[in-house]
Amino acid sequence: MNPDSTARRLESALAEVHEKIRSAKERGSVADYIPELARIDPDQFGISVCLADGSHLGVGHYRTRFSAQSVSKVFTLAIALGRYGDDLWARVGREPSTLDFNSIQELEIRRGHPPNPFVNSGAIVTTDIVLGQSTPAETIGEILQFVRTAASDNTILIDPAVAASETESGHRNWAIAHCLAEFGNLDHPCEMTLGTYFHQCAISISCEQLARFGRFLAGIDPNRGIVSERTIRRINALMFTCGHYNGSGEFAFRIGLPAKSGVGGGILAIVPGIASIAVWSPGLDRLGNSLLGTQALEALSDRMQWSVFISRLADSRL
Amino acid sequence: MNPDSTARRLESALAEVHEKIRSAKERGSVADYIPELARIDPDQFGISVCLADGSHLGVGHYRTRFSAQSVSKVFTLAIALGRYGDDLWARVGREPSTLDFNSIQELEIRRGHPPNPFVNSGAIVTTDIVLGQSTPAETIGEILQFVRTAASDNTILIDPAVAASETESGHRNWAIAHCLAEFGNLDHPCEMTLGTYFHQCAISISCEQLARFGRFLAGIDPNRGIVSERTIRRINALMFTCGHYNGSGEFAFRIGLPAKSGVGGGILAIVPGIASIAVWSPGLDRLGNSLLGTQALEALSDRMQWSVFISRLADSRL
Amino acid sequence: MNPDSTARRLESALAEVHEKIRSAKERGSVADYIPELARIDPDQFGISVCLADGSHLGVGHYRTRFSAQSVSKVFTLAIALGRYGDDLWARVGREPSTLDFNSIQELEIRRGHPPNPFVNSGAIVTTDIVLGQSTPAETIGEILQFVRTAASDNTILIDPAVAASETESGHRNWAIAHCLAEFGNLDHPCEMTLGTYFHQCAISISCEQLARFGRFLAGIDPNRGIVSERTIRRINALMFTCGHYNGSGEFAFRIGLPAKSGVGGGILAIVPGIASIAVWSPGLDRLGNSLLGTQALEALSDRMQWSVFISRLADSRL
Amino acid sequence: MNPDSTARRLESALAEVHEKIRSAKERGSVADYIPELARIDPDQFGISVCLADGSHLGVGHYRTRFSAQSVSKVFTLAIALGRYGDDLWARVGREPSTLDFNSIQELEIRRGHPPNPFVNSGAIVTTDIVLGQSTPAETIGEILQFVRTAASDNTILIDPAVAASETESGHRNWAIAHCLAEFGNLDHPCEMTLGTYFHQCAISISCEQLARFGRFLAGIDPNRGIVSERTIRRINALMFTCGHYNGSGEFAFRIGLPAKSGVGGGILAIVPGIASIAVWSPGLDRLGNSLLGTQALEALSDRMQWSVFISRLADSRL
Repeated sequence: MNPDSTARRLESALAEVHEKIRSAKERGSVADYIPELARIDPDQFGISVCLADGSHLGVGHYRTRFSAQSVSKVFTLAIALGRYGDDLWARVGREPSTLDFNSIQELEIRRGHPPNPFVNSGAIVTTDIVLGQSTPAETIGEILQFVRTAASDNTILIDPAVAASETESGHRNWAIAHCLAEFGNLDHPCEMTLGTYFHQCAISISCEQLARFGRFLAGIDPNRGIVSERTIRRINALMFTCGHYNGSGEFAFRIGLPAKSGVGGGILAIVPGIASIAVWSPGLDRLGNSLLGTQALEALSDRMQWSVFISRLADSRL
Repeated sequence: MNPDSTARRLESALAEVHEKIRSAKERGSVADYIPELARIDPDQFGISVCLADGSHLGVGHYRTRFSAQSVSKVFTLAIALGRYGDDLWARVGREPSTLDFNSIQELEIRRGHPPNPFVNSGAIVTTDIVLGQSTPAETIGEILQFVRTAASDNTILIDPAVAASETESGHRNWAIAHCLAEFGNLDHPCEMTLGTYFHQCAISISCEQLARFGRFLAGIDPNRGIVSERTIRRINALMFTCGHYNGSGEFAFRIGLPAKSGVGGGILAIVPGIASIAVWSPGLDRLGNSLLGTQALEALSDRMQWSVFISRLADSRL
Repeated sequence: MNPDSTARRLESALAEVHEKIRSAKERGSVADYIPELARIDPDQFGISVCLADGSHLGVGHYRTRFSAQSVSKVFTLAIALGRYGDDLWARVGREPSTLDFNSIQELEIRRGHPPNPFVNSGAIVTTDIVLGQSTPAETIGEILQFVRTAASDNTILIDPAVAASETESGHRNWAIAHCLAEFGNLDHPCEMTLGTYFHQCAISISCEQLARFGRFLAGIDPNRGIVSERTIRRINALMFTCGHYNGSGEFAFRIGLPAKSGVGGGILAIVPGIASIAVWSPGLDRLGNSLLGTQALEALSDRMQWSVFISRLADSRL
Repeated sequence: MNPDSTARRLESALAEVHEKIRSAKERGSVADYIPELARIDPDQFGISVCLADGSHLGVGHYRTRFSAQSVSKVFTLAIALGRYGDDLWARVGREPSTLDFNSIQELEIRRGHPPNPFVNSGAIVTTDIVLGQSTPAETIGEILQFVRTAASDNTILIDPAVAASETESGHRNWAIAHCLAEFGNLDHPCEMTLGTYFHQCAISISCEQLARFGRFLAGIDPNRGIVSERTIRRINALMFTCGHYNGSGEFAFRIGLPAKSGVGGGILAIVPGIASIAVWSPGLDRLGNSLLGTQALEALSDRMQWSVFISRLADSRL
């Protein structure tokens, strides 16, 4: 297989996808429960792809920064798994959820044990674990540094206005944190864990940066070894089964790639051994996933025949 | 990559796995709610693997026939998707479930729309769809013929004693069928649909036969074209996210392959482009999945580095 | 207190209530899931009251027979409590339900133990208990005889067309019965218990007959002793907290009397020591209780100052 | 009926009840989630009864003060109903709950509309309503004054140590408050409403004082008119159907009187027109209601034939 041909095919595929998205009628609704995010222009769209050969393409607003939000759950999960390994699973599960990403009832039914690290309750516990003996400021710095290292980009930043906006209006996350505390599944005061969590969600990142971040999850990063192969497989499995909340089955069915979405409108998708993809469009579907971002990934994966279920024999014929 | 080397590595891997399983202390409990199944000797274990090069290996009781039970949900899903395509999704969903495989409440909460085709309610609807205008006898014949064709084996049979046993004692499935009927999601009388369903579950099959059946799902069957590539990818995606009921996330995390289990103790697992695996051991874990079968698949996938998330570049280095 | 004055005040109160109901705009919807009931003219209304002094008044269609439906749950509960006493509570609870009267999920969550004898699942269990060693025909005869004796009226009958209509279309009740059987809370085959249950629901009764039936529950029947005082208090308590399904709190708040409604549009209400009231109007509210019947009871209890919470001192001043 | 005879019968009934309770083996468990309450000696028991004739009896520790806790929900409900009438019901329901008194999931399922004013979420909303335009300090003063006036006792106080104890450890109530805020059902910041709520729960009161408080609910207070008769009937109805959380049906069945319990071990019970009863024993049953307090009320109501369902004719024969 000639890598150049992949990059060439990808270039025309991206152009096609961009054209298709431009003419989409239904564009979803911007998340309105975080005041700072409600102001974003919904008419933006960008996509960026890193390939195994080191080439890096992008179309649309692929250099515009957006709020990582739940995509950041991958950042802390990677740190927590790397540092604590299977100890993590004493405090959070590995099963898809059927209720909304910010459900409180699912947490109470499960007696404070979140279903997986990609719903809010599970991510708050993961952040609480990463906090360990450090201060929130140190931990936020550490998470940011991990993202910068993986993305080879030291300009990635946190948007303090978004973090402040969530701190004030995030009643649901406060309810979740107190519920976790009630069941003894929080090591730090709610203020401390949520303070860290809100800052991690407020990481501001572009498609270009996010695609570069995702290279280690695709096994195509130039400087291997940030995270072990075994951990990478596991993060991919969790992204595949739980990455789109209660729309994960649908996403797997339509696109067949591990991916993680955020209410900022971004999605990180992985083609193991081949590519790391970041897409962004702020309009969301009713489950809180980027509407056009999902459509773009579906069109791109169809066009490129990218799916974890494509047989390698078939692939080698391309 | 030399195909012979794969077969050779597999041979020693299977021997290792067999040894490991032989010494396992905890062996699970045989399903006791179907009287005919409660009598099975729990000390049996078999595994069989078909490779892309046509080689076919097996160890243990890989030629002993067992009751397909929920593995048969793959049979009818393949027929229904092939025949009706996306029309199927008007009557059944594509999301993982969080309650038990035979939950009635999940069905009522969803107003008669089953979460996916791999829980009992979803499989009963799928069978109802496959019934169409035919009689139960014709439909059962058709399902059996499909399995025989895919497995290239005309000796696969239905065990009438198991079918009768379920008809009499399956109160839960009768409750599910009446609940589906209540919500208008059953085209035939409960007796007719359930009669067909109980016979389909009672298909008696060995690991050797089941592994051969699964070749088309791995894209390695000699006579391609039973089912389209697109449908195959979709069935794999559903097996991956929903194939082990509310233990699907756990299975994906540990093993990373699309698979479908049944309370008869069988599991069919797919390595896209590489292999079709069937394993059987009648002792079940608390979610109704084969305890030793799952352990065997975990050991084998670890040893062979089989996972849909293993990068192809990495693979090519093996 | 002069009993004559009560009868005189009641006469004018009933006339007022009748007038008020006649001009009501919103009249509810007739139950449509039982085909035989769907044909009833919704514009009918009757009410009948028996007083402690033996006087018996009625207005409107108070001599028209209607289908007892869930009001019959009082009939079998009285028989079961009289015969088995507290043994009943091993198989059914005493708590109000929060889901619909025919909920299946509540039953599964409670592992086959119905919340109370006045939701469908609880009534089916009560009927199963009353069946005992008898045949369905004997048991139906016995229930009918109990109602006739309490009402001093041998012309009360069962409508076989309604019973047949439910047998054929009652998928939800079949689902409930199989769910009870699954959890081992049914002593007889589903067909036998449900057959009896459907016939008991199909008792055809007028307001005049039903009010007479209720006298023993008010402690004002001429021939005391059908049921012990203790059992009577307990049936009243259950009617008060559970008699209107998940609208029981609302009914207690507005009317303050023990009562039991049915989807045929009838309601039996008790004023302990003072009166037995039967009201009927076939249009139902969204919870399945008679809309105008409830309004009539509210107006009547307001006008007569009938409530279990009216102080007796206050009452003696009237 | 000679009122003296009631007092005499009551005196011997109380002595009997006291004797019976003294010898009880199973005494329940003291609430341990509020540190200040966990230290109470579980071996205490007191009961006090006010009669319509003004007589007031008590046995055991009937002058020992205990923490009102959820009994205080009656205090604020009476104030809120008196001041806002039916406007209250836009923000809280009137149906019994089936989950624990401090359930969060029930609140989320109901989209922030609590089932009734006697579960924690409903009481927090009621307090939020009573707060109105006042400060927490003013509102706490107002609630305390209402209790003192109804009880004709200016020595009733709030225990600041209990209030502080709840503020620090009440994660569950914080989760509930944030959940209410999320659904827009809280007019004040969580800190303000919960601060008021925790102080109201911390009212320290004896059986003697609480029985005197309850006289207006029985319609036997010397200075009538604190609350209208209509409101009194409604509060009684709510106490009857919802006063013991998800054990309300059981309490109604066994005792047949409107009552409200608290985790401090107190219960206020009303015999309309006849008596106001307060009982206290700190050991709780598994639903959070006083174990011996409930047994004492059952024995007393049996002995005195006190039940809202006892016919007045029967009563007059006593």
